[in-house]
Amino acid sequence: MARVESHPSEAGPADRTPEASDTAAGFELLDGFERFHQRDDVFSRSFWDEEVRSGRSELFYETYRTPLQKWKTVDGFTQRDYALRNASWHVPDIFAELKGAADRREGFLDEFSVLRPGPDEQVEVRSPADMARDVKAVARTFGADLVGITAYDERWVYASKYSRQTDGEKEQELPDGITSVIVIAQSMDFDLIKTVPSALSGTATGIGYSKDTTVLLALAQYIVNLGYRAVPSMNDTALAIPYAIKAGLGEYGRHGLLITEEFGPRVRLGKVFTDLPLAHDRPKRFGVREFCEVCRACTDACPAKAIPGGAPSAERHNRSNLAGVVKWSVDGVKCFQFWANQNSDCSICVRVCPYNRDYSRAGSRLWRRLAGTPLRKLMLALDRRSGRGDRMAPGEWWRRARARMGGGGP
Amino acid sequence: MARVESHPSEAGPADRTPEASDTAAGFELLDGFERFHQRDDVFSRSFWDEEVRSGRSELFYETYRTPLQKWKTVDGFTQRDYALRNASWHVPDIFAELKGAADRREGFLDEFSVLRPGPDEQVEVRSPADMARDVKAVARTFGADLVGITAYDERWVYASKYSRQTDGEKEQELPDGITSVIVIAQSMDFDLIKTVPSALSGTATGIGYSKDTTVLLALAQYIVNLGYRAVPSMNDTALAIPYAIKAGLGEYGRHGLLITEEFGPRVRLGKVFTDLPLAHDRPKRFGVREFCEVCRACTDACPAKAIPGGAPSAERHNRSNLAGVVKWSVDGVKCFQFWANQNSDCSICVRVCPYNRDYSRAGSRLWRRLAGTPLRKLMLALDRRSGRGDRMAPGEWWRRARARMGGGGP
Repeated sequence: MARVESHPSEAGPADRTPEASDTAAGFELLDGFERFHQRDDVFSRSFWDEEVRSGRSELFYETYRTPLQKWKTVDGFTQRDYALRNASWHVPDIFAELKGAADRREGFLDEFSVLRPGPDEQVEVRSPADMARDVKAVARTFGADLVGITAYDERWVYASKYSRQTDGEKEQELPDGITSVIVIAQSMDFDLIKTVPSALSGTATGIGYSKDTTVLLALAQYIVNLGYRAVPSMNDTALAIPYAIKAGLGEYGRHGLLITEEFGPRVRLGKVFTDLPLAHDRPKRFGVREFCEVCRACTDACPAKAIPGGAPSAERHNRSNLAGVVKWSVDGVKCFQFWANQNSDCSICVRVCPYNRDYSRAGSRLWRRLAGTPLRKLMLALDRRSGRGDRMAPGEWWRRARARMGGGGP
Repeated sequence: MARVESHPSEAGPADRTPEASDTAAGFELLDGFERFHQRDDVFSRSFWDEEVRSGRSELFYETYRTPLQKWKTVDGFTQRDYALRNASWHVPDIFAELKGAADRREGFLDEFSVLRPGPDEQVEVRSPADMARDVKAVARTFGADLVGITAYDERWVYASKYSRQTDGEKEQELPDGITSVIVIAQSMDFDLIKTVPSALSGTATGIGYSKDTTVLLALAQYIVNLGYRAVPSMNDTALAIPYAIKAGLGEYGRHGLLITEEFGPRVRLGKVFTDLPLAHDRPKRFGVREFCEVCRACTDACPAKAIPGGAPSAERHNRSNLAGVVKWSVDGVKCFQFWANQNSDCSICVRVCPYNRDYSRAGSRLWRRLAGTPLRKLMLALDRRSGRGDRMAPGEWWRRARARMGGGGP
């Protein structure tokens, strides 16, 4: 298969950091590569494409906004579970709906707006390397759990945005001159993810987006206040994972998710596009690819059979997959249909992933190190035997949470 | 002095938690007690009262919104310091301005709006004690650093709101039937506060408000989703400290701030008014009052001489003080004038307060324990000698932050 070498637009500002190449990031692009259109995203398709849209998918979205007509009694899908999950989305929901009248769905289909204009003059940047460290320190101060910086690369920008209002395409609005992408990751709650599948566990997603929103907005405003351009973006505008890998935040996993050293696959990503002169990070490998090659934890656990068990390939399940990239590709339609059927988002692949651990524990750090060596099959077997990836009953989550507040009872 | 006993409206729902009385909380109210009008708050007065309003105060507010015409070169007041401080306010600023056209300044003069209506039916609450623990667990899950619950007490609700648009008073909008107040506290960044006074340190305030906003909105939406009323409130609607003390979050300090066991005075407060049946917490004493009686760290350090050195009294410096309460009362006009003159908020009293420590350290926890005993004078002397309350140069904060990101340099 032909390999497409680094795209010219990847060349960042002149600084001492070597450009992260596709090879270092483990990207394999073919001649047939095409930029993705956001209308082909399975979430967009669930609005316009009869192959994905259904009464179930409409009810799925509805449960995020209005209380179910009849509360389910299944543990993890009761009123308090939905009440918590939906409440966790309060802030991202507000931003998503704020400019609906202007056909904007910020954070999901459109970039966030920055409130205040910056000064007329730009601060002088003598060292992009120092400025990169400053910006990372600022992101951390604002609450980012992880942060990395990579070159702007148009390949990962959606060829067009999707408009729910018109069911059509919209043009991208990124300003000219963007040179860098700052990628942040927010960790998702370990215990909530243990209760997957459940409506309760969707709370981890909502909280992740809430933190993402706050950090992205503050970080972008900081850069604007220095006189530069900064576009805060969550799920809108571009694919996040390729930038995250290039920025050294982690590796790509079989389940199609980023696997970070610090939180495994338990992260939500955000990004800020900017022309502030910044040094770039390099991709970081710690053995994930080799581990995923021998592991099928997510493939076997996925109730929708949406995760491939074979080698990376350029085959597409449907139009929701990128064209011309050799990778593990999830069948987004099957995945989303399971979400719609159970009335909540699912992260079983995150829960069962052997990298989904609490790395504040020395044992987890040792496991991670050995999983990156030829002992990986042993580490996989040990993980399976440990019961780490087992589901915690949602009722148990509530019981423990209540007990931590000084009470007993169910 | 006559003592006003617990107000009837304090009686909460029937549960096993005894009502927190004024005595337990250390409140001493006189017959002349009057509810506070928000127009008398020094921030409101800086808009309508020529005693407080000035060119300096107008510039003070302006620097939060637009870049200074000429950047100062004093360490801690340079462009990057203001850029960071103002960026940290991005989210609370958005909410404050969102409904400006409707004469609402949410989070500061008006309560936040909750996005989604709840279900028609309320969930049944069999045990207000269990529900209180659930709600606290939910608040913690959403990111609250501290949470407590107390009875609704109308005495601390502003007698009227202040409208900047009309320079006049507005009626309160709290719904009938509120029985409880859930109080949350968000810790403020320890290192940023070390750089007080500086524009840089104001970042700790902005981040605190950002977290407050997110947690309050999510927590209120959770309660609404259970079918009850919930009004999320930050600096608007009511005084926060009396509720926080009654809810067991901490004690009242000489500098007029809440002192918590977990973060000392380094917190921002938020509250949710609700009719959800909840058990109430009790005030908690750990020796602060007795310590403040012998300590003058804040009094001596305040450049505006706004903090009293004497015993608690009912004397008012001006209309910005509560009438009819025996307490340490700060002169808010002097305090605010210092803020206006230095072009940023000041927290010198927070920085120098001996309770402002990093309590993840065993030494700090030991100090706190002994400060609550007759050894308090010794502990005060030790604190003074340790240099704990000394200012860190803002440039040093940036240097350290950058170094943590792997770089050296200035």
